[in-house]
Amino acid sequence: MKFTKFGRKMTSNAGILSLMDDLGKAKIDNREDMVMMGGGNPAQIPEFQEIMRQELLDLCRDPSEFKRLVGSYGSPQGEAGFLKGLADLLRKEQGWDVTSENICLTNGSQTAFFMLFNLFGGEMEDGSWKKICLPMAPEYIGYADLGLETGLFVANRPVIDILDETFFKYRIDFNTLQIDDSIGAICISRPTNPTGNVVTDEELAKLSDLALKHNIPLIVDSAYGLPFPGMMYTDATPMWNEQTIVCLSLSKLGLPAVRTGIVVASKEIIRGLTSMNAIMSLSPCSFGALLAEKLVTSHRITTISKDMMQPYYRKKKDRAVQAVKELFTDIPCRIHVPEGAMFLWLWFENLPISSLELYEQLKKAGVLVVSGHYFFPGLEEEWRHKDECLRITYSQDDNDVRRGLEIIAQVVAGAFATEKQALTGPGATGERG
Amino acid sequence: MKFTKFGRKMTSNAGILSLMDDLGKAKIDNREDMVMMGGGNPAQIPEFQEIMRQELLDLCRDPSEFKRLVGSYGSPQGEAGFLKGLADLLRKEQGWDVTSENICLTNGSQTAFFMLFNLFGGEMEDGSWKKICLPMAPEYIGYADLGLETGLFVANRPVIDILDETFFKYRIDFNTLQIDDSIGAICISRPTNPTGNVVTDEELAKLSDLALKHNIPLIVDSAYGLPFPGMMYTDATPMWNEQTIVCLSLSKLGLPAVRTGIVVASKEIIRGLTSMNAIMSLSPCSFGALLAEKLVTSHRITTISKDMMQPYYRKKKDRAVQAVKELFTDIPCRIHVPEGAMFLWLWFENLPISSLELYEQLKKAGVLVVSGHYFFPGLEEEWRHKDECLRITYSQDDNDVRRGLEIIAQVVAGAFATEKQALTGPGATGERG
Repeated sequence: MKFTKFGRKMTSNAGILSLMDDLGKAKIDNREDMVMMGGGNPAQIPEFQEIMRQELLDLCRDPSEFKRLVGSYGSPQGEAGFLKGLADLLRKEQGWDVTSENICLTNGSQTAFFMLFNLFGGEMEDGSWKKICLPMAPEYIGYADLGLETGLFVANRPVIDILDETFFKYRIDFNTLQIDDSIGAICISRPTNPTGNVVTDEELAKLSDLALKHNIPLIVDSAYGLPFPGMMYTDATPMWNEQTIVCLSLSKLGLPAVRTGIVVASKEIIRGLTSMNAIMSLSPCSFGALLAEKLVTSHRITTISKDMMQPYYRKKKDRAVQAVKELFTDIPCRIHVPEGAMFLWLWFENLPISSLELYEQLKKAGVLVVSGHYFFPGLEEEWRHKDECLRITYSQDDNDVRRGLEIIAQVVAGAFATEKQALTGPGATGERG
Repeated sequence: MKFTKFGRKMTSNAGILSLMDDLGKAKIDNREDMVMMGGGNPAQIPEFQEIMRQELLDLCRDPSEFKRLVGSYGSPQGEAGFLKGLADLLRKEQGWDVTSENICLTNGSQTAFFMLFNLFGGEMEDGSWKKICLPMAPEYIGYADLGLETGLFVANRPVIDILDETFFKYRIDFNTLQIDDSIGAICISRPTNPTGNVVTDEELAKLSDLALKHNIPLIVDSAYGLPFPGMMYTDATPMWNEQTIVCLSLSKLGLPAVRTGIVVASKEIIRGLTSMNAIMSLSPCSFGALLAEKLVTSHRITTISKDMMQPYYRKKKDRAVQAVKELFTDIPCRIHVPEGAMFLWLWFENLPISSLELYEQLKKAGVLVVSGHYFFPGLEEEWRHKDECLRITYSQDDNDVRRGLEIIAQVVAGAFATEKQALTGPGATGERG
């Protein structure tokens, strides 16, 4: 049976599928010794899980509430009570000029990006094409395959700022960033998955100006950001205006299975997304929205983010950084300054093997990571840096994280040592090993 | 801000959106007196809701089960336990030669159809185009807007079989049905939404032969069918083979909010859908699958369908038919023989106004229905019949259904009377009123 062009694109090897596959297969193969530092699963913070469990018990105990949970099709825009509560929170706590009509729910953020990218990128009615601009690579692996057709993205190489012996930071290179008529939208994750970067308020303001000037939306993926789950370890202000589309999610609070994505945008765009929800899925799953409704209407969700999530992940981040500092002493290893999210982005300058080969070696050695080369969708140019990085998730158990980092340090040291040997040993040709 | 061609298509007036809008607005306007016979909401059967509520309480009471419910990304194919249990059920109870690898979950059936239709219909890699053939209109309104581009469907006009004074039945017109290289897949809902028709085993076998001959899939939408929820009031055998894609759903059991669609197909197609799930939404929401897992693994879901769902809806169907017989005595009204699902499809032959005008008049008079003209996606030809029918949902309270039918009878009688007056009264011109 033959698949269409779209079908073939959506079913050929997708980076995100191999990532999900890896996670699944490690589970199925009962490789319980495998250290899982590859996926995007957030931590299960016991206090938070208990709050949620009690909420669900409350919903369950009341048959009429239970009926809302399972019993009738919701609105294609999402649960009205959740939307109203969130609009109120964003208005009062962030000062954003929004009502329920500025918010729409989706079956996870990923679905929101599928809709948004193809709403603003691709073939226009006049036959011209628009691309989605990622103003700074590396960017999230999950975007890469979302276009209905190939070539949806164009990305910009960042400036690399060496901060000290340990840390570096990517900055948007506004000198080379080109926004013109070929661009349908700008998108950036803040904090950035995979790097943990948080673009500064100044950088964001500049992007917003560019979006306004070209009358295109600036999409800010805030899955790890403010107001929730609040995995931010640096000062940065969340921002919204009519030209901006902010994407939030319940996943990283510890609720990835509920698949609740949240889009805050102009009313026109929300009407568009609502229509797409209706066509593509009748209505989004209401489970997450009902589960978190009270947290949102009471604004408790921001307190939890500030007082529970943020300190929890900050500590994990500090421990992971400390472990890298201790374990990677003799290896050329830099860490992107971890300003947010739950990843360390490690850069092994002049790594003698590609990051994909390194990933394979690490898998054999018992630790799952994600090869950095996946995180450059839309950046076609040759750049060795693309093959020198790894994304390490530190959301899981601290001892596991340390054990994983030990293995990584050994394997990377081995790779550098093998090259050195090849270069200096008998029969060395001077070529790259 | 400009939307792409795809974006404009997905955000212009969709039949399904106006349907969902109608349902939503009637709720919001507090038109509590409005009789809701338009939507696809199933009944809330109290015994079943109670079984589900207890299941969820059990999951909630156990923190480790609760963790599965909310705490980590599921597989893009869907919950493994549910898939295994369902494969076992289908193998043992239906004799289908399937394993877990033949099943994939989606965020509701609607999403499955979005993926399937665009996997098999649209532009091919060689530049040619394939359409989705609906072998018998009327067909489900929700299909109409699912194409990435317009013109995805081609539908075939049925043979109308007048069974007796009350009932008629549509039959597939195999004399005019054309399956050739321009067709990428055949799709039929069985029972059919909106008509309640169940295509016979012979008709289905003929479609299956055609699919096999042309090496294209036959998609059977069994959202109301067997093995669950089992809303079938006639003898008919469910069928699956490697060439067939059967779509099931948990919605019509009374769980529409959980958004769980189920696709049973060849392993190759399931791998394709799994990839699309990963790209478009990382993984489907696991709530429904976990909630119903025990029902499925114990095969209790088929007993419930047979002994609880089927008799419940059969009774409602009988009462609704009885009401039509009593109330529509002086009006040319035929009912499509209700062999399945939860709809009456009423045909007012030579109705002097269009079904869309009738729908508007009915809304003003306090009853929401769906105009029949929406249910002919892909049937472009002029055919007065398309504007002479209404879809009436009888899943809600029997007294409401009767009250709604009373209003419909009055309004339709009024429409016929007005025409008669115009034709015979002073100043009559003999033209259609």
